[in-house]
Amino acid sequence: MKAFDQLDSYAKLQALAKNPIDLSQEEILTAQRVEKMHQRALDYSLFYATERVTAGVMDALFGLAEETDVIKKMAAMQAGEIINCIEGYESEKRAVLHTAMRDQFSQSQKDLRAKDASERAAKELQKLQQFLQQIEKKNQFTDLIQIGIGGSDLGPRALYLALAPFRLPDRHVHYIANVDPDDAVSVLNQVSLKNCLVVVVSKSGTTLETLTNEAMIRKQFIKEGLDPRKHIIAVTSEKSPMDDPEQYLASFYIWDFVGGRYSSTSMAGAVSLAFAIGFSAWIDLLRGAHAMDLHALEPRNLPLTSALLGIWNRNFLGMPAVTIVPYSQGLVRFPAHLQQLDMESNGKRVDRMGRWVTQPTGPIILGEIGTNAQHSFFQLIHQGTDCIPLEFIAFEKSQYGRDIEVQSTTSQEKLLANLFAQSIALATGQKNDNPNRFFPGNRPNRILLGRQLEPYSLGVLLAFYEHKVAFQGFIWNINSFDQEGVQLGKVLASRILDHFAQPRTEKKPQSFPAAQAYLRLLAQFRQM
Amino acid sequence: MKAFDQLDSYAKLQALAKNPIDLSQEEILTAQRVEKMHQRALDYSLFYATERVTAGVMDALFGLAEETDVIKKMAAMQAGEIINCIEGYESEKRAVLHTAMRDQFSQSQKDLRAKDASERAAKELQKLQQFLQQIEKKNQFTDLIQIGIGGSDLGPRALYLALAPFRLPDRHVHYIANVDPDDAVSVLNQVSLKNCLVVVVSKSGTTLETLTNEAMIRKQFIKEGLDPRKHIIAVTSEKSPMDDPEQYLASFYIWDFVGGRYSSTSMAGAVSLAFAIGFSAWIDLLRGAHAMDLHALEPRNLPLTSALLGIWNRNFLGMPAVTIVPYSQGLVRFPAHLQQLDMESNGKRVDRMGRWVTQPTGPIILGEIGTNAQHSFFQLIHQGTDCIPLEFIAFEKSQYGRDIEVQSTTSQEKLLANLFAQSIALATGQKNDNPNRFFPGNRPNRILLGRQLEPYSLGVLLAFYEHKVAFQGFIWNINSFDQEGVQLGKVLASRILDHFAQPRTEKKPQSFPAAQAYLRLLAQFRQM
Repeated sequence: MKAFDQLDSYAKLQALAKNPIDLSQEEILTAQRVEKMHQRALDYSLFYATERVTAGVMDALFGLAEETDVIKKMAAMQAGEIINCIEGYESEKRAVLHTAMRDQFSQSQKDLRAKDASERAAKELQKLQQFLQQIEKKNQFTDLIQIGIGGSDLGPRALYLALAPFRLPDRHVHYIANVDPDDAVSVLNQVSLKNCLVVVVSKSGTTLETLTNEAMIRKQFIKEGLDPRKHIIAVTSEKSPMDDPEQYLASFYIWDFVGGRYSSTSMAGAVSLAFAIGFSAWIDLLRGAHAMDLHALEPRNLPLTSALLGIWNRNFLGMPAVTIVPYSQGLVRFPAHLQQLDMESNGKRVDRMGRWVTQPTGPIILGEIGTNAQHSFFQLIHQGTDCIPLEFIAFEKSQYGRDIEVQSTTSQEKLLANLFAQSIALATGQKNDNPNRFFPGNRPNRILLGRQLEPYSLGVLLAFYEHKVAFQGFIWNINSFDQEGVQLGKVLASRILDHFAQPRTEKKPQSFPAAQAYLRLLAQFRQM
Repeated sequence: MKAFDQLDSYAKLQALAKNPIDLSQEEILTAQRVEKMHQRALDYSLFYATERVTAGVMDALFGLAEETDVIKKMAAMQAGEIINCIEGYESEKRAVLHTAMRDQFSQSQKDLRAKDASERAAKELQKLQQFLQQIEKKNQFTDLIQIGIGGSDLGPRALYLALAPFRLPDRHVHYIANVDPDDAVSVLNQVSLKNCLVVVVSKSGTTLETLTNEAMIRKQFIKEGLDPRKHIIAVTSEKSPMDDPEQYLASFYIWDFVGGRYSSTSMAGAVSLAFAIGFSAWIDLLRGAHAMDLHALEPRNLPLTSALLGIWNRNFLGMPAVTIVPYSQGLVRFPAHLQQLDMESNGKRVDRMGRWVTQPTGPIILGEIGTNAQHSFFQLIHQGTDCIPLEFIAFEKSQYGRDIEVQSTTSQEKLLANLFAQSIALATGQKNDNPNRFFPGNRPNRILLGRQLEPYSLGVLLAFYEHKVAFQGFIWNINSFDQEGVQLGKVLASRILDHFAQPRTEKKPQSFPAAQAYLRLLAQFRQM
């Protein structure tokens, strides 16, 4: 397969990028352009009149999608082909089947690997439903603490906050991720353990942060005269060290074909979230994600359009970052999830053949909710020296539906007015004789607008971004599903820990001069 | 005054940047380098052996600081000179005196403007102390809701989370910022209004989001049969529309010489935080900030070193972003505050003489806490196609001091081991025959290490970053204290709101084709 910058479409797009449309020119952002440049599916509209594209650029971008066979690759992924690999080198060599976790509604997959994964997921969902019915009867548990880090934390936590209005009465979830002991202690200070379920999520059953926090919580249960085995649930691989009925109240399984950052719809998210919002609302979320999975197999689908616009900005207009700004309070931590999803998936420098990439891959992702962000870092977005494209997310209706009219408009109307105003202002800019009040404009941005944020539409949105990221990886021809870049730090941390442990173990740690210097300085300061 | 890239030091640094040190070369990151390249003040150490600098580069950077008179400018700022201005153009023309808010301990300022500001701040502190004593006696209020956005939200909220272990029993603070009605509703769902103080923060008394949320809360007080005037406090300018004893239980003043993002140590932060942790702990925080203010007047101070290293990475090594990663759970939202502080201050394209800058100014700022971030976006930081420098923050001790030994080390030791490991791994990288397991290294980073996160050290840290940002602005010769870039969006939002309001007011809104197209599409979808 050709490298990205050897593709015919690459050359074509590069030629188009020499003279891209300038959104700040008068008469560019017309009503006609706005009405033409939008695409709608599954109750979401993608407005992209404020991107620096023309119909010709869009055609060339979809030509790139065809030349790189992205729909075929999406189908291969959903069918369970081994796509998590680097050819010719040692690599994970795994299928990528997060879509199977929610393929529970249409029996769409004929491939045996995908069917097998869906059936396994169905079995865990059934176990979960029964488990929730049992604890419902007991009526003992009001709180649940999930211990997990990375994908076992950011996705579920973001979804939990987005689903707050759908929480069952007296059901609260807390998340502990950090090895900083203050994280666990501050959660322990908020709960009464006798009413607490604890869910420990680790695929391997060996994640250092997670095991350490589990040990801390177990100790606290015992200190309070409670039996941890009656409270703690494992979410792990079958046969991992954590798959042990002696130690856990229950076990739910996850598999190596679902990566951490894609695992929110597996048991890594299901247990805490179905506890919070109830099993049937959880199924609604899966139903939404599945609908988007099917939509992503169609030729011109929403996440593909978004992926292509991102490629245009990144590789042809040369922009290093993307800001994601949901105008929706419920999505307050969704950007943190997307930051992991995108940067961990596509922050790569080797293609699927093990060749160095010669073009930028995944951009920096940052984001906070609007309108808050307008009063924070938008100054730089409007008037800074770098151009940072934006992706807005918003909904027609608020979640709670409670609102107030002030100065003849509701708060929800003010929210949407601000969103449209920002989108237009970033595109058009504004001339001014005072240079400090001059807005250059021509800042590309797009809006994904849904109807209302509830379980189904949240499932659609979650899968939208999963597939946007996957499509970009397919186009760059990189492996979006491994994360070798996190290994070196782990190895070095373990060597430094030997130094800390030495006084207790007498095991002589390896020589490691720079780290020893840090530790020597640390010891000196302690004595000061 | 010369433009930044016309300075003698600029040319010198540019020459040095042609062949910068490569941290991934063997024998570069030695114990000697680590021990030499650190600087200590106010119980913080700044380790910068893992930056791409030599002693020669550091000398040239401090030469740049001298040539741009940064210490003199810092002194002028703290003395109350009018530095928030653009020469020859209409601009705010204000003093910048957040340092006066905490100049309560040493009578260091002789300048009348600064003295006057300190005295005003002292008066408000005294009013606050009396107010807190009164409510202490009443023992009615357990919760406080702060309504404010931007600087009236991010800073105080970040500090509140960082001060959680110091909270008085039964004192909770909630923050409402967003005009999304879901923000206010979800806070209202968590509190009992009869035990609630509400603090509304708006310097002008006219911030749309804030007034709207205040209206919603007032309405709810009345609905519950409570008198809002016995619960709601104003933090605003003297004589603003909100400075009205008929409407508010109390008023505390802020002034136009303290910008929103620099206002945490003014009454914008003081009321909610002193309510939470008590007045004397609040004074400790101010004491820490003041100590850093004095330190920042010394020739080679910590924030200046950090500012210069940032300039080196940004302007001479060409890096577009900075990632700030505190290895401290308490600082979970501190990066969001720093994102505003830095990007809103230095995201500028005009210098103080109204000339277009020809060099990059403020970088993109992103950040989350460690170790969590290691399991999230660090993949891209280690192996992505762009190089993103990092600023780590950490403390020797945890906040709560409760810990557990697992595998012969404590959690706090694991936290610090991971921090040092990341710092070293990013610098040195690692060779590997498998290209997917190759780490290029040479990723610049530095560590700011304190003893423990408590009110005093948090005050030091807050002021450290305020001055780091100010020093960079002084060097670029930009105005770090205005925010003209937020205006255009406000103007356009108000025009779009006229369209929403029209059915209720019959006032004919201005023609605005692109926005009307969005609204038309929105209306169509609603009917679908």
